Amino acid sequence: MNSEDVRFFSGLSNPRLAQKIADHLGIPLSGTHVSRFSNDNLFIQLGASVRGRVVYIVQSLTPPVSDHLVELLMMLDIAKSAAAREVHAIIPYFSYARSDKKDAPRISITARLIADLLKTAGATHVMTMNLHSPQVHGFFSMPTDPLTARGLFLDYFLKKELNPAEAMVVAPDMGRAGSAARFAALLGLPVATASKVRISDTQVKIGGLLKRQIYGFKHALVYDDEIATAGSVTELSKLLVRKGEVEDITLICTHGLFLGKAEQRLAAIPQIKEIVTTDTTMMPDDRKLPNLTILSVAQIFGEAIRRNYLHESIGDLFTFGYS
Amino acid sequence: MNSEDVRFFSGLSNPRLAQKIADHLGIPLSGTHVSRFSNDNLFIQLGASVRGRVVYIVQSLTPPVSDHLVELLMMLDIAKSAAAREVHAIIPYFSYARSDKKDAPRISITARLIADLLKTAGATHVMTMNLHSPQVHGFFSMPTDPLTARGLFLDYFLKKELNPAEAMVVAPDMGRAGSAARFAALLGLPVATASKVRISDTQVKIGGLLKRQIYGFKHALVYDDEIATAGSVTELSKLLVRKGEVEDITLICTHGLFLGKAEQRLAAIPQIKEIVTTDTTMMPDDRKLPNLTILSVAQIFGEAIRRNYLHESIGDLFTFGYS
Amino acid sequence: MNSEDVRFFSGLSNPRLAQKIADHLGIPLSGTHVSRFSNDNLFIQLGASVRGRVVYIVQSLTPPVSDHLVELLMMLDIAKSAAAREVHAIIPYFSYARSDKKDAPRISITARLIADLLKTAGATHVMTMNLHSPQVHGFFSMPTDPLTARGLFLDYFLKKELNPAEAMVVAPDMGRAGSAARFAALLGLPVATASKVRISDTQVKIGGLLKRQIYGFKHALVYDDEIATAGSVTELSKLLVRKGEVEDITLICTHGLFLGKAEQRLAAIPQIKEIVTTDTTMMPDDRKLPNLTILSVAQIFGEAIRRNYLHESIGDLFTFGYS
Amino acid sequence: MNSEDVRFFSGLSNPRLAQKIADHLGIPLSGTHVSRFSNDNLFIQLGASVRGRVVYIVQSLTPPVSDHLVELLMMLDIAKSAAAREVHAIIPYFSYARSDKKDAPRISITARLIADLLKTAGATHVMTMNLHSPQVHGFFSMPTDPLTARGLFLDYFLKKELNPAEAMVVAPDMGRAGSAARFAALLGLPVATASKVRISDTQVKIGGLLKRQIYGFKHALVYDDEIATAGSVTELSKLLVRKGEVEDITLICTHGLFLGKAEQRLAAIPQIKEIVTTDTTMMPDDRKLPNLTILSVAQIFGEAIRRNYLHESIGDLFTFGYS
Amino acid sequence: MNSEDVRFFSGLSNPRLAQKIADHLGIPLSGTHVSRFSNDNLFIQLGASVRGRVVYIVQSLTPPVSDHLVELLMMLDIAKSAAAREVHAIIPYFSYARSDKKDAPRISITARLIADLLKTAGATHVMTMNLHSPQVHGFFSMPTDPLTARGLFLDYFLKKELNPAEAMVVAPDMGRAGSAARFAALLGLPVATASKVRISDTQVKIGGLLKRQIYGFKHALVYDDEIATAGSVTELSKLLVRKGEVEDITLICTHGLFLGKAEQRLAAIPQIKEIVTTDTTMMPDDRKLPNLTILSVAQIFGEAIRRNYLHESIGDLFTFGYS
Amino acid sequence: MNSEDVRFFSGLSNPRLAQKIADHLGIPLSGTHVSRFSNDNLFIQLGASVRGRVVYIVQSLTPPVSDHLVELLMMLDIAKSAAAREVHAIIPYFSYARSDKKDAPRISITARLIADLLKTAGATHVMTMNLHSPQVHGFFSMPTDPLTARGLFLDYFLKKELNPAEAMVVAPDMGRAGSAARFAALLGLPVATASKVRISDTQVKIGGLLKRQIYGFKHALVYDDEIATAGSVTELSKLLVRKGEVEDITLICTHGLFLGKAEQRLAAIPQIKEIVTTDTTMMPDDRKLPNLTILSVAQIFGEAIRRNYLHESIGDLFTFGYS
Repeated sequence: MNSEDVRFFSGLSNPRLAQKIADHLGIPLSGTHVSRFSNDNLFIQLGASVRGRVVYIVQSLTPPVSDHLVELLMMLDIAKSAAAREVHAIIPYFSYARSDKKDAPRISITARLIADLLKTAGATHVMTMNLHSPQVHGFFSMPTDPLTARGLFLDYFLKKELNPAEAMVVAPDMGRAGSAARFAALLGLPVATASKVRISDTQVKIGGLLKRQIYGFKHALVYDDEIATAGSVTELSKLLVRKGEVEDITLICTHGLFLGKAEQRLAAIPQIKEIVTTDTTMMPDDRKLPNLTILSVAQIFGEAIRRNYLHESIGDLFTFGYS
Repeated sequence: MNSEDVRFFSGLSNPRLAQKIADHLGIPLSGTHVSRFSNDNLFIQLGASVRGRVVYIVQSLTPPVSDHLVELLMMLDIAKSAAAREVHAIIPYFSYARSDKKDAPRISITARLIADLLKTAGATHVMTMNLHSPQVHGFFSMPTDPLTARGLFLDYFLKKELNPAEAMVVAPDMGRAGSAARFAALLGLPVATASKVRISDTQVKIGGLLKRQIYGFKHALVYDDEIATAGSVTELSKLLVRKGEVEDITLICTHGLFLGKAEQRLAAIPQIKEIVTTDTTMMPDDRKLPNLTILSVAQIFGEAIRRNYLHESIGDLFTFGYS
Repeated sequence: MNSEDVRFFSGLSNPRLAQKIADHLGIPLSGTHVSRFSNDNLFIQLGASVRGRVVYIVQSLTPPVSDHLVELLMMLDIAKSAAAREVHAIIPYFSYARSDKKDAPRISITARLIADLLKTAGATHVMTMNLHSPQVHGFFSMPTDPLTARGLFLDYFLKKELNPAEAMVVAPDMGRAGSAARFAALLGLPVATASKVRISDTQVKIGGLLKRQIYGFKHALVYDDEIATAGSVTELSKLLVRKGEVEDITLICTHGLFLGKAEQRLAAIPQIKEIVTTDTTMMPDDRKLPNLTILSVAQIFGEAIRRNYLHESIGDLFTFGYS
Repeated sequence: MNSEDVRFFSGLSNPRLAQKIADHLGIPLSGTHVSRFSNDNLFIQLGASVRGRVVYIVQSLTPPVSDHLVELLMMLDIAKSAAAREVHAIIPYFSYARSDKKDAPRISITARLIADLLKTAGATHVMTMNLHSPQVHGFFSMPTDPLTARGLFLDYFLKKELNPAEAMVVAPDMGRAGSAARFAALLGLPVATASKVRISDTQVKIGGLLKRQIYGFKHALVYDDEIATAGSVTELSKLLVRKGEVEDITLICTHGLFLGKAEQRLAAIPQIKEIVTTDTTMMPDDRKLPNLTILSVAQIFGEAIRRNYLHESIGDLFTFGYS
Repeated sequence: MNSEDVRFFSGLSNPRLAQKIADHLGIPLSGTHVSRFSNDNLFIQLGASVRGRVVYIVQSLTPPVSDHLVELLMMLDIAKSAAAREVHAIIPYFSYARSDKKDAPRISITARLIADLLKTAGATHVMTMNLHSPQVHGFFSMPTDPLTARGLFLDYFLKKELNPAEAMVVAPDMGRAGSAARFAALLGLPVATASKVRISDTQVKIGGLLKRQIYGFKHALVYDDEIATAGSVTELSKLLVRKGEVEDITLICTHGLFLGKAEQRLAAIPQIKEIVTTDTTMMPDDRKLPNLTILSVAQIFGEAIRRNYLHESIGDLFTFGYS
Repeated sequence: MNSEDVRFFSGLSNPRLAQKIADHLGIPLSGTHVSRFSNDNLFIQLGASVRGRVVYIVQSLTPPVSDHLVELLMMLDIAKSAAAREVHAIIPYFSYARSDKKDAPRISITARLIADLLKTAGATHVMTMNLHSPQVHGFFSMPTDPLTARGLFLDYFLKKELNPAEAMVVAPDMGRAGSAARFAALLGLPVATASKVRISDTQVKIGGLLKRQIYGFKHALVYDDEIATAGSVTELSKLLVRKGEVEDITLICTHGLFLGKAEQRLAAIPQIKEIVTTDTTMMPDDRKLPNLTILSVAQIFGEAIRRNYLHESIGDLFTFGYS
């Protein structure tokens, strides 16, 4: 990549990952000045000229989500208005992907709204990772690449040579069933699905057949896309221990937020031996999780950006609907 | 509804349902002239003035899908260009909802493309039914109401008072797991999911845990959104018979196309006691399926149209992401 | 107004004003449910059906501005997607109007960006008040009515029968010069302008000619559009006292935020006898400002909404470029 | 042309011409996989990465027109969504150009609709040939080059050194009058026009003055843009023989479809000595027309593509409103 | 029509016709203030509130065309920005319809450009008359009604009971051939076409076969859409006299501009017995043309406006591609 | 700059400046053919192929403004339609910037309208100079660079080494106060502002405090953005002489139109010693103004174009809201 021709910026949400991607590409990370006016309006200034250049802006929609979103929209607008040639929104964690359907009256399919706002603000291309459902890809009106972190997890677990008679992959709900099954197949393991069913707006039932599925297995790999307050994943863990003969549990998730009571909830279950996640979100230094393994997605994003810039195919970094 | 203020038209795909909806509303179905020029171009003329009126156009994307799609786009364009006040596309069967994600490189998320084409052609509102996945709702840029046929099926099966110790609902694949589970819960039945996993572009594996889930059940209700050539549903039926102790099978699907070898495939499995579907697609008169029950969705669409016209909520006719 | 035909909602920023406007119109204020998912995503549900109706959404962009903005965008999106007939964004305080020009390289004209985002989210009409500069009106792509609170201030001060030989209006900077001059003329008072000049990005100079202008006056009415942390307005107040013979000062501002050190700064200047503001922003109950007078804009917004609904002219509620 | 920088694809309608154009350019024709799902939905996959590249897609709107149109729209969408730099729709035969005006109530100006659909699907540039009327050019919202095949016909007939006292050009109707006259002038021949007048929707009258115009000529060159079922052109041929002294007839048309009864109709008129057409449409191998001459437009399209890629003027390949 | 619900304005080009249309409808013509700033910028103020109303703006694109166009665009923008419910551009004479194709390199299809500008400025519907070619209809992106004045001419000439053995209709060029033929057929007269062929950018040839066509006729009705400086129509008139046995000529045109040397050119040909035109353009009082008959189109526009407002079909006032 | 890759055109308004900019860049100025059809329609043809190239079109909106605007829109449309890669509108004098707010009911914010029309016509980038207010920048939907001529004036006046005790800068109204103050600060001079207040639509009052401000100064530099008929600037000049002790006056304005009575008005005030302006507008050869100094902006535009083409920052040529 021609470092004169590109500009690389980071919002406030995940500068650590942005720096790693920039390092991978051998491109400097230009500064971004973010401050607030006295009335709480954001003020943002990009630290390098973007005229006619290819601009990359890295921002994860981690808490405070609204601020990080508005930051991103303003950065895109600056790049567009200052005559950038291309404006790439690199959104490792697109939190609103979870708001992907209208499952109650008079609510918003917010993922589509955000996709439209990104377009309005000036994004000409989006890169993101492990969207909550593969259909969210179709919400974007500009070319979009939902990359996958599955390769990272595969590499990590293949080395462990898990025994298919003892270890199984567990999807925490029906929505994750497809991706968990695919992950399991690639590891040569069986898969079970917890059928958490939303019967009405207030009632959730965890399927009675889970017990049948997990019968006889000792090691469970719970495969989720995102852990926020760890409520459902710890509930499931308890169930696995209680209903089955599961002895130890590994939690796997692309987006590890670990907010609120997550730390204490996870600490309360001794069978959780390891939590494997990535750096799509930036862990505050003061958050302590034992047995946490963080795999970096910097190389995946870096490689995707490089290939896109050089007009090479990025198909093998891509999710293709099943991550 | 003020019959002077509205116009109701049907394309060639499902005039029978269109007529039923019109009857339900007490509105005349105006004629549509469809013919072809000698070079195969379509020629369409709407049979009544639409100026300033609220226009409804009913078209299912049944085979020949491309012709029916272009017909619909032209009808929308006519209404828009002739100064209709509102143009409602009523698409009981939106076939392309299945093309909702990019699960291979260099393919189209065609459901989004079609949604955009409908917008360009002039649709100001869309009504459809049981989209393949609830996220497809978010592909549309205009207000869209994905109605549900589940209520029809519920009414029909609740009368049968099925025994939860003997009968279960089976989802034919992971994608249907959610809606099948919800349907089962409302019937008070357990649910199993066949984990048909696509490992690579050419390899599909049917999950080994199905046997565990169906063990002990005699009656299986396979709950799918669409049956075309009945390939996968008959394969699953065989599996249910062979792997479990299932004695009889009921197939339930909103969109029953029964194309190609569907008739003979279904006839070859004596355990299939009944097929329950709806009239979102129009069955040709010469297609014979034994034990076929067709429930009409005319009242649902009619009611939704009436309420929308009268500015009443249609929330209870709605899918809310779980059909 | 036909209360069946309209729906009135409020975001979290200023429910008190929203309720007053609704009361003025004799329309119920429908509920809005706002909560957060565990990952900090906003979840919003409107509490009444909007199908085919005229919808009004009241939201001021007060701190936390980003959250209030995203809330507003989501509410607009919900109304649009749920087939509202018209979607009116009532934004009494449009904070980003201050970001109305590019006065440094690589920044955003954020007021234009926000106007575009409102359009994308679904606003078909905007009502706001006393924009920082009248040109911001031109940033909006939909019909927009910038109302004025000047009439409220005029009514209030005309009663005081100020003596033009002793009292004068002071504009805190060049940008306010026009509106201050017009306000002064309507009160029959002279006007002075503090020429705070930004020479470079870091250097600000307060004009040496102010002293000449204020010479001989005892009462100063400082006329501003917005007071946030009260930094510049208290500095000006000190100058008026020090450089002139000003004995008492009245601060007038449409949008009174009084954030951060505002309370103590204002309290430190005994010559500030009164602060007159409006309820475009909602004062927290625990914020105490002595001598504060809050005039309500509810009637102005209510009247503008009523006339707009009834297709009457609202010209006399309008700013016409000089507030 | 840099073959690394471009991608050349063909839909199913005219791969033979696509291959010839590719050969002319020295660029490989990449594969396109087209199949159907069991519900008749089209499935299309482009056979080479298009990221950042200039993509050309060749498709003629020959029967089945709707399928070929939807194919084209999907191919454009794939290229756009996969981040192609430019997406050129090469449509040698744009059948819907004939639907270019509203000559009955409540019909569609379908040519405009299709132009808008192409834009929505992602075409950034269109190349086509001999549009039915030059105004159709103005229907397209992106740069569009309507090329002309007239040069091919001129070269072919100039060699025959026709005698202006014996040979004349005949326009089959008023719409063709302009282009026929221009063609005649370039050959140095006189021109006559059959004034086929549509008086009402059902009544067509062939002008009585044709006889006067063709009196004395032996050789007639009927110059049309398209022959589909050959109905009108054979009727005219009979008239020329019957009303005049015409001994032999040459039919010239850019787009030769020869559908339905065309073969037998043409065979039934011995005076038709030759039919000269081009390969904008692909003749099925089993269609036999005696005396058929097919001139290839591959070089014209190839040259236009090459010059466009190299930023050279293509004015001399252009129609300029009179072909 | 509810005169409270509509607003009727006229630009400066043809207030006389606007008043007549308003009179026909029984609606007052509201004032429009048009003036210029000292720098030649136009300043326009509409004289009545348009909020929520249906607005009609009448403007013909007569000289000075650019001023009249910018006036119209500004009036549309005012209506749109001031929240009119519908904005109808009534353009009796759309001069740029003649710039409908690209018949030279690097020129503009200006009719399409103007149609797009009207859309941008805010027109939601267009009414116009006798577009130069029927395809221009397809340039507009909003509902558009190209009305026809042919009925007026028919009524006028049917009363004259012309003899088909002596009188004929003459189209001045190929482009007019279709409409002239249709007009002739309705009068029961034969038709001839002057084949003015543009061979190159500088060479025009008048077809040699005209003489054959007009042989034997005494009365010629030259049927054109527009006469500006009367250059081509007087040249044709001379030809008819010289080449044939034509004794008297009637000129018929919808849009009679009679600019520049038109008066003297027409006066110089004694065989021109009558000129029949309409008031789509406003004749200056000082322009004197002998034997001029002006038929008013006010009733046609008025009726079309009335029906459109009342949601009635206007099909019989329509052109349908053949005027 | 690669002269093969760019095309440089001028409209009729200011070819002299266009030529100078082209000379500065070492790029040929390609011809533009502008003429009129007999019906007053403009006909424009660009004199060089633009396919795939970067196109610059120079046009000032000087009188006749409407013609120059339509010319510009057509030239942009030609470039866009002929597949130019980028289309830059270089508008040294954007007259409509003065219509930047709605200061009366039912008028147009015409500057925004024009910005939108430029977008519709095809401009991908705009360069202009000294907009009437910096907010107008935000009206444009494409990247826009409002350059500044202040540097030229500074260079010119710094050489004169004016004495801050004797010379002052005067802003002719509140709108100019900011830019005048900044200009004064850079020259080290004090600044005064004439507070011309528009109290109602018909009443203007010149502020009584001017006298205080100018007391004691001998030399006044009146700093305005535009002089058209010189009405207000000459009135102000008289006031300066009468109310103060001003001995000589220098008028400075970026856009010098000098229309109507400007010559005689300016000649009537002997104290006006010099008028300093630029060539953003083209002075007719027959207009004689004594003591006129014209500074050329060619280098500024040339440099901005060059840097933009080479992807260099143009920040230091930029206005940043304070010119």
